[in-house]
Amino acid sequence: MTSSRRPTVNEVAERAGVSIASVSRVLNGKGARAETERLVREAAAALGYIPDATGRSLKLGRGLQVAFAVDDVANPVYTEMMRGVEDGLRDAGQQRSGAADGPRLVVASVGHELEDLIALISSLSRGFADGLVISPLRTSPALVTALLEAPVPVVVVGNPGDKVPIDTVRTDSGRGVKLAFGHLADGGRQRIAFVNGPSETAPGRARLHGFESAAEGPQGGLAGAVVEASAFTVEAGEEAWARLAALPARRRPDAVVAANDLLAFGVLRAAVSAGRQVPRDLAVVGIDDTEYARIYNPSLTSVSLGAVRRGTLAAGLLLDRMQQPSRAPRTRRVNPRLVIRESSAPRSVRR
Amino acid sequence: MTSSRRPTVNEVAERAGVSIASVSRVLNGKGARAETERLVREAAAALGYIPDATGRSLKLGRGLQVAFAVDDVANPVYTEMMRGVEDGLRDAGQQRSGAADGPRLVVASVGHELEDLIALISSLSRGFADGLVISPLRTSPALVTALLEAPVPVVVVGNPGDKVPIDTVRTDSGRGVKLAFGHLADGGRQRIAFVNGPSETAPGRARLHGFESAAEGPQGGLAGAVVEASAFTVEAGEEAWARLAALPARRRPDAVVAANDLLAFGVLRAAVSAGRQVPRDLAVVGIDDTEYARIYNPSLTSVSLGAVRRGTLAAGLLLDRMQQPSRAPRTRRVNPRLVIRESSAPRSVRR
Repeated sequence: MTSSRRPTVNEVAERAGVSIASVSRVLNGKGARAETERLVREAAAALGYIPDATGRSLKLGRGLQVAFAVDDVANPVYTEMMRGVEDGLRDAGQQRSGAADGPRLVVASVGHELEDLIALISSLSRGFADGLVISPLRTSPALVTALLEAPVPVVVVGNPGDKVPIDTVRTDSGRGVKLAFGHLADGGRQRIAFVNGPSETAPGRARLHGFESAAEGPQGGLAGAVVEASAFTVEAGEEAWARLAALPARRRPDAVVAANDLLAFGVLRAAVSAGRQVPRDLAVVGIDDTEYARIYNPSLTSVSLGAVRRGTLAAGLLLDRMQQPSRAPRTRRVNPRLVIRESSAPRSVRR
Repeated sequence: MTSSRRPTVNEVAERAGVSIASVSRVLNGKGARAETERLVREAAAALGYIPDATGRSLKLGRGLQVAFAVDDVANPVYTEMMRGVEDGLRDAGQQRSGAADGPRLVVASVGHELEDLIALISSLSRGFADGLVISPLRTSPALVTALLEAPVPVVVVGNPGDKVPIDTVRTDSGRGVKLAFGHLADGGRQRIAFVNGPSETAPGRARLHGFESAAEGPQGGLAGAVVEASAFTVEAGEEAWARLAALPARRRPDAVVAANDLLAFGVLRAAVSAGRQVPRDLAVVGIDDTEYARIYNPSLTSVSLGAVRRGTLAAGLLLDRMQQPSRAPRTRRVNPRLVIRESSAPRSVRR
């Protein structure tokens, strides 16, 4: 603080003896050669360089804006994650700036197309937002490249791939499936089916892995059919139930683990419509513990993956990254937690 | 088309003999003196003036962006309206530009505070969005002023006040309440209560009016207690049921019209938890016909107010306004429609 003038990125580049592009890559947490990274960080530290996210916002004449990109805005788990991001931005904004309002959250609904998501990321440089939180269902090399080259800081809720140098918030949904399986097995269920979403998605892959792992465990003899629904939606859950109901009697399940709550509601709706008594004839467990799990009749046992908490953690990582672009990427984790309700009451208990 | 150069707003002002501000007000569909309006429209028409929303977007180096401001992003009715807006923008974008992708929708979650909404509207001039669709629960003179002075075209889904010169998409939710009441009365219900949301909101006021109107009609003798919930949420619906259940036996309802589906789910959840059989002991009808109405157990009879359709109509009005800023404000209407399901099966039918 020997001068009132803030050092510029050009001065950092000059002192480090590297290009401005290299400084930008390092300070935005993108990959760079180890030696380049060291030179840039030393130069930035020596000069007291402060990144310019806030400055850019002021130039645009508005407060910080953060984008949250979702695959399916109709899935309440994203609504809850969004609330977490908002809470995190607001709290942090108040703490850091003393201002009454924190950064504004805008939600970009990008649907299921990776190209749309990549186009969104590229457009971020143009005044739309100063940071991005995304929770993509699917990933690809092109998406990872877009994230690494994003013009603003990015936090991924999920796993963009091993060793990708991006801040992430993760959970272990495979472990969540195992919790659900163990609960149903302990409750006396004899044939536990798994209704997965598309297995080529990141959560579909992780959850299938969890079920396969349970099927190889000490209670694995109780593992039943695996059905892959066409999407993580209620309608797809209804269709999946139809396939389970069409199995030969000896393979038909008395319990279902569904890969998310929407699939579980679809299974419940279809099974109840077909005359099944839940939980007497059929126990159902969902994943995500969305608001509707508590409300449904019967209320739905579900594995919470801490959606609100994951959103809040993502907001914190994003704001940290804006303040300290050169820090090493970090991962925050949230543990799955089983929330037991009516839909999985044990076999032995008659009502 | 005698010149390849496009006329500017300055030239329109000069020809009309009015200020640039007046031209801007007229061309953005805001109020102006009738004579001023006539002069500006004549000048714009004579010069072949083309408004500049598209031009502005190109300057910003991105496609058109439309903001959708919601009070409660967790209410599925807004998710559905949002899908309608997206559909409308995409279809129109394809029709008009031949481009593969239409304008991008961004959602600004502004919560319940009118000040936040007003701040959002003011910030629209600064690159955030080229147009706004809002569906505010509450209105105020300050909000109306902000809408009239908004730097970009605005469409209100709802009623911002009589004679406010803004494009609107409306429905008649009071009539929706009357449809629900008549259906329950026809089904043999003897005491029909109304669980409203806050009556100081626009929908709360309209829906209460509908119930009062039904209570004055030929079946009005069946009208029971009116309870005002603290919000349009599930939790508030549960609390409202507790108040109805605490009434003296002779005033306790055998049917409830809830002012939206979330309140209806709260009533259902609380009543079923307390041992009521639905629809045998209690019939329930919601409003909005959200996705969960079909899925719930029992499935919920609900009045559709055409949320998706209202969103699509709003997108159309907004794009029209961008192309023809000087056209007179318009109102598009969607009629309520009763969707009968399990939760309101007639008294006479035993299961």
